[in-house]
Amino acid sequence: MNNSYGQLFSITTFGESHGVAIGVILDGCPAGLEIDEAFIQSELDRRKPGQSKITTQRKEDDTFKILSGVFEGRSTGTPIAIVIENQDQRSKDYSHIAETFRPSHADFTYDAKYGNRDYRGGGRSSARETAARVAAGAIAKLFLKKNGVTINAFVSQVGTIKAPHYTVLDLAKTEENIVRCPHAETAEKMINFIDQVRLDRDTVGGTVTCVIQNTPVGLGEPVFDKLHAELGKAMLSINAVKGFEYGSGFDGVALKGSEHNDEFYKEGDRVRTKTNHSGGIQGGISNGEDIYFNVAFKPVATIMQDQQTVDKRGNEAVVSGKGRHDPCVVPRAVPIVEAMAALVLADFTLRNRGSKI
Amino acid sequence: MNNSYGQLFSITTFGESHGVAIGVILDGCPAGLEIDEAFIQSELDRRKPGQSKITTQRKEDDTFKILSGVFEGRSTGTPIAIVIENQDQRSKDYSHIAETFRPSHADFTYDAKYGNRDYRGGGRSSARETAARVAAGAIAKLFLKKNGVTINAFVSQVGTIKAPHYTVLDLAKTEENIVRCPHAETAEKMINFIDQVRLDRDTVGGTVTCVIQNTPVGLGEPVFDKLHAELGKAMLSINAVKGFEYGSGFDGVALKGSEHNDEFYKEGDRVRTKTNHSGGIQGGISNGEDIYFNVAFKPVATIMQDQQTVDKRGNEAVVSGKGRHDPCVVPRAVPIVEAMAALVLADFTLRNRGSKI
Amino acid sequence: MNNSYGQLFSITTFGESHGVAIGVILDGCPAGLEIDEAFIQSELDRRKPGQSKITTQRKEDDTFKILSGVFEGRSTGTPIAIVIENQDQRSKDYSHIAETFRPSHADFTYDAKYGNRDYRGGGRSSARETAARVAAGAIAKLFLKKNGVTINAFVSQVGTIKAPHYTVLDLAKTEENIVRCPHAETAEKMINFIDQVRLDRDTVGGTVTCVIQNTPVGLGEPVFDKLHAELGKAMLSINAVKGFEYGSGFDGVALKGSEHNDEFYKEGDRVRTKTNHSGGIQGGISNGEDIYFNVAFKPVATIMQDQQTVDKRGNEAVVSGKGRHDPCVVPRAVPIVEAMAALVLADFTLRNRGSKI
Amino acid sequence: MNNSYGQLFSITTFGESHGVAIGVILDGCPAGLEIDEAFIQSELDRRKPGQSKITTQRKEDDTFKILSGVFEGRSTGTPIAIVIENQDQRSKDYSHIAETFRPSHADFTYDAKYGNRDYRGGGRSSARETAARVAAGAIAKLFLKKNGVTINAFVSQVGTIKAPHYTVLDLAKTEENIVRCPHAETAEKMINFIDQVRLDRDTVGGTVTCVIQNTPVGLGEPVFDKLHAELGKAMLSINAVKGFEYGSGFDGVALKGSEHNDEFYKEGDRVRTKTNHSGGIQGGISNGEDIYFNVAFKPVATIMQDQQTVDKRGNEAVVSGKGRHDPCVVPRAVPIVEAMAALVLADFTLRNRGSKI
Repeated sequence: MNNSYGQLFSITTFGESHGVAIGVILDGCPAGLEIDEAFIQSELDRRKPGQSKITTQRKEDDTFKILSGVFEGRSTGTPIAIVIENQDQRSKDYSHIAETFRPSHADFTYDAKYGNRDYRGGGRSSARETAARVAAGAIAKLFLKKNGVTINAFVSQVGTIKAPHYTVLDLAKTEENIVRCPHAETAEKMINFIDQVRLDRDTVGGTVTCVIQNTPVGLGEPVFDKLHAELGKAMLSINAVKGFEYGSGFDGVALKGSEHNDEFYKEGDRVRTKTNHSGGIQGGISNGEDIYFNVAFKPVATIMQDQQTVDKRGNEAVVSGKGRHDPCVVPRAVPIVEAMAALVLADFTLRNRGSKI
Repeated sequence: MNNSYGQLFSITTFGESHGVAIGVILDGCPAGLEIDEAFIQSELDRRKPGQSKITTQRKEDDTFKILSGVFEGRSTGTPIAIVIENQDQRSKDYSHIAETFRPSHADFTYDAKYGNRDYRGGGRSSARETAARVAAGAIAKLFLKKNGVTINAFVSQVGTIKAPHYTVLDLAKTEENIVRCPHAETAEKMINFIDQVRLDRDTVGGTVTCVIQNTPVGLGEPVFDKLHAELGKAMLSINAVKGFEYGSGFDGVALKGSEHNDEFYKEGDRVRTKTNHSGGIQGGISNGEDIYFNVAFKPVATIMQDQQTVDKRGNEAVVSGKGRHDPCVVPRAVPIVEAMAALVLADFTLRNRGSKI
Repeated sequence: MNNSYGQLFSITTFGESHGVAIGVILDGCPAGLEIDEAFIQSELDRRKPGQSKITTQRKEDDTFKILSGVFEGRSTGTPIAIVIENQDQRSKDYSHIAETFRPSHADFTYDAKYGNRDYRGGGRSSARETAARVAAGAIAKLFLKKNGVTINAFVSQVGTIKAPHYTVLDLAKTEENIVRCPHAETAEKMINFIDQVRLDRDTVGGTVTCVIQNTPVGLGEPVFDKLHAELGKAMLSINAVKGFEYGSGFDGVALKGSEHNDEFYKEGDRVRTKTNHSGGIQGGISNGEDIYFNVAFKPVATIMQDQQTVDKRGNEAVVSGKGRHDPCVVPRAVPIVEAMAALVLADFTLRNRGSKI
Repeated sequence: MNNSYGQLFSITTFGESHGVAIGVILDGCPAGLEIDEAFIQSELDRRKPGQSKITTQRKEDDTFKILSGVFEGRSTGTPIAIVIENQDQRSKDYSHIAETFRPSHADFTYDAKYGNRDYRGGGRSSARETAARVAAGAIAKLFLKKNGVTINAFVSQVGTIKAPHYTVLDLAKTEENIVRCPHAETAEKMINFIDQVRLDRDTVGGTVTCVIQNTPVGLGEPVFDKLHAELGKAMLSINAVKGFEYGSGFDGVALKGSEHNDEFYKEGDRVRTKTNHSGGIQGGISNGEDIYFNVAFKPVATIMQDQQTVDKRGNEAVVSGKGRHDPCVVPRAVPIVEAMAALVLADFTLRNRGSKI
């Protein structure tokens, strides 16, 4: 099932950018969880368009409706269906997408694979689909919160502007600015840079870093469903993601074993590591230290400039972005990364219940 | 199922490092495929220990036996079971592993998760398990070969020594040296460096780059099972992997959309792109261009030096590597990366058969 | 995923009897299929309550809405979400269900398993959920129709009144009477009997027989996903079903091999069998003959009579059915059986595309 | 994955009747379970050929070897691979199977589906595959035993000879005779009848009844993975099975709701039912009463008589059974039914761990 994710705490999403609605079915949420609807809405609000000058100016409220699975404020163990209606379903002028393949979009590949494509606003390949993930991810967060687990993502890089390592940041400050970088000085630079890119009718990429804390020891199911392998897949399934690394990541390649190894020590009755190049995961299983990883997002493909391309009939064509688009995707990607991380962790929490007799 | 990978062309692996045997069941291989056993063995030989001075000197032949699913030289559509017996099952002195958690190994996490652990040689968490993947991956390669798809991985970085971009290399030269870098000059530097690291009783990390060519358009199943998301998971499930990036990857973050977008053009009746920052995948679906990605491997955790740790009873302890281990894992990781890539591509080839009525 | 069915052509259903809505996501429907909405509605109409004097007199229109996955009248290969709003969500008096376990209903087991239960109208355990299956099954039928496959179910038994064997019936006559038995004489007896049972404030069971014709040879995936094993599971997952048999079924037990075996012969270039005790399936794979099976439905549990039971606090209690209920479920079960059969066949049609290289 | 069964406690089987070996990988067995190898062997011995005069006289020891997943006598949480070597792999004369389709066997359908078929002894479609299920099922029994659950199957019908209802039998007596019917008088009739059928060079069908006791309340995952739906699929996946019914089954069809409903009462602090037409399952979830079901087996297809058929080239042909075959399959089917029931129950036991927060 291509549109489902998760083994036990699992989601199935549906919907196109300009169809009737998008939504998600969350199956496997244990019964008895308090479903805080205001929290779900606040998570959707962090992702919604039009929230600041450096995001798309398109307006969509992204209000959701729970159709099933919740009774008297609590989950019942049956599927929780959530629907978000698309407010703007008018048939606009999509001729530039219908007939012409936009560079670095999914127009050509969807057309080749399926033949029949809902081209309006990118259809199924639109990042609008991620709103459904955020709604379900909010419920995953509520579940994890009961176990004390916290998930905090932030923008760690825009273009070549980088924030300091997460260990020297106060992650509580992430929401204090519109770019969602908890380091004020860096945030200001990022905002100015994105604003300039927007004025240049261009776009730019960035990186989101995610930190998961207070994770119990034992999450992850080797050999294939290692915790970081599922986190990687979950992140790479988000639109525009080009790379994933956890712990020491690509930089760890250059280290010696004697530098990279995390020595163990005892803290009270907990086994801890002195360093954390492992990123909280050893052998695919959480070891109780902070889990942290980076997710690379490419520059948004829609730019307000003419680009060479071909159309469906094979003729050369020129295409340019229309409408209102994000100059940089990472500020709105922060809650999406958190949502997918929460879904992975919730799933492994349930899966771990079967590890011992 | 934690030890299974793939939806239609799927594998299930089993076995511990020093148990009776390791092996794999390949379920879903279409009937009628010629099973070239000599090719399977040659792939296993590329992975086996003791093949050069820069790999572990441990000797293991890794000869395999097919138990089922092949008749008169061809696949029958039923499960293909392959077993590789462990030659060395003697009960050596494993007290340093049995009671003490080796830094940056899976000893602690397996112990915490399962309680009951086969500690001999790392047990299930040993990279020995990957031999099973290579055997199954060889059959996936035979299947893909019928469609013209080729998969070539090579060592692109060791420590800080990097090879040039794959587009300027002759990938046919990869097997010409023991480090499996097709750029002779770089290869020599890498070999010398690994040799020095080995003499220092230390280890070092590296990067493997993989290039998949002649892929048909249409492989990949959005929104969750995007082609690169599954490639990412498959790679991250390999022991010691810390990161995955495809196409422009992490470097693409710094680019503008106007630099990064791959413009389309027509070549004969094929739609092609002028550049390939997309890495052959758009919207999670192959577009017919080269698929390429990088996989980061951390330095091997077993070093011949004393390290601080704790034991099962919570006492402080010192542990040092014993036996014969790889100073750098990437030369032997090349066939493993190829095998996992082949399994992913074979699976998506079958899955794509359902895309249209 | 407990609320999903099918590997490639797969559905996920949601919704409670008296929640906001019920619905289904159909994932994996190949692109390019014409979606005939009038046909979907006509299938729902065959299942809806209030359609005749021998069904519940409850009125519900069961009008559906497609939210995604269809564009310009055709499937796009993306998930097809269908929602059916519940018309009657008023908070009625459910105290007799909320606190008291109705005999042979799911009240007690849901309560024990989940703790938290939407008791209104049976909640998730209500047969109302099957409307979602019928909607998705209608699309499966449209897909199968392109390959010539036909599926016809009918009521073959009510109480002890049995219809003749399907081979001597004209299945085109099934819809000619309200009990959906194509044998007019038997139908009349059944209708009179059900009517009497209803007047007695009681209920009665029955059997639905399903016949699938023009199936291609090769559907079914041994050893576990045999065609009849999946048909069996699909039928047994329908509310109130107590048994499944195909071909000679339970009666075949009494036969000798020499009587039961279906000898082969050649008809044109087709391999055929002289008899069909196999029910069109051999070794779990369709052989091209008619597939036929029987599904046993127990008497509806809700009766208009006082019954002894216990309540949530463990006190003895008396409960009696309220509202309008079916005296016999099989007339309305006919389209449900067909829908599940269609979903199984559609799934195996896609799965079979991977059987050969 | 066609050769896998179970979501969490899951098996994957492999092997052909006359290939090198058959076997199974059990993935998901929780760590810490004592693996009693003598018990596994005793279960295999109940299934093995040549055990009495009414089974095939073919001799096969069916000794097994555990390759992985068990350490110091206990499960480690990693895959348990079990292999049973085929003792008789000689190339006998299989020309009658290689070229000719045996009536009511899988020869024709496998040939049509896969093209390439291991015809020796039926290959993959041979009931020999069920030995792998019995080995894994034995481990499932060990797991269930820790929770007090017991599973007892017995032969309840051979031809038209029926045993009394299980509630009046002493199931401890099942192994006291070679037909595995705990009612001595009926057993004798069955044995004599089978013996006569064998002398007539014919075969006959039968029914196995299975009773599961001391099941906890709450097993089963509606709406599709209802406990009885999975039991049904598991049973129908066994060779030669034609039908499945649980509780009142097909006979329940004839009852009125007022007769069929199981009224609740309180016994100590347990909620119990006065009758058990529900067969221990309500709404797809176990209610703590006895689970019981019947499985119908057709007469063995291999008979020692000439039968009309066609060969691969479409010519008319005559085929007759060769070698040593069972005149009636049910005595040896008893442990197979128990094994599959145990696998289903073990899986649902783990799945139920996720029902509440």
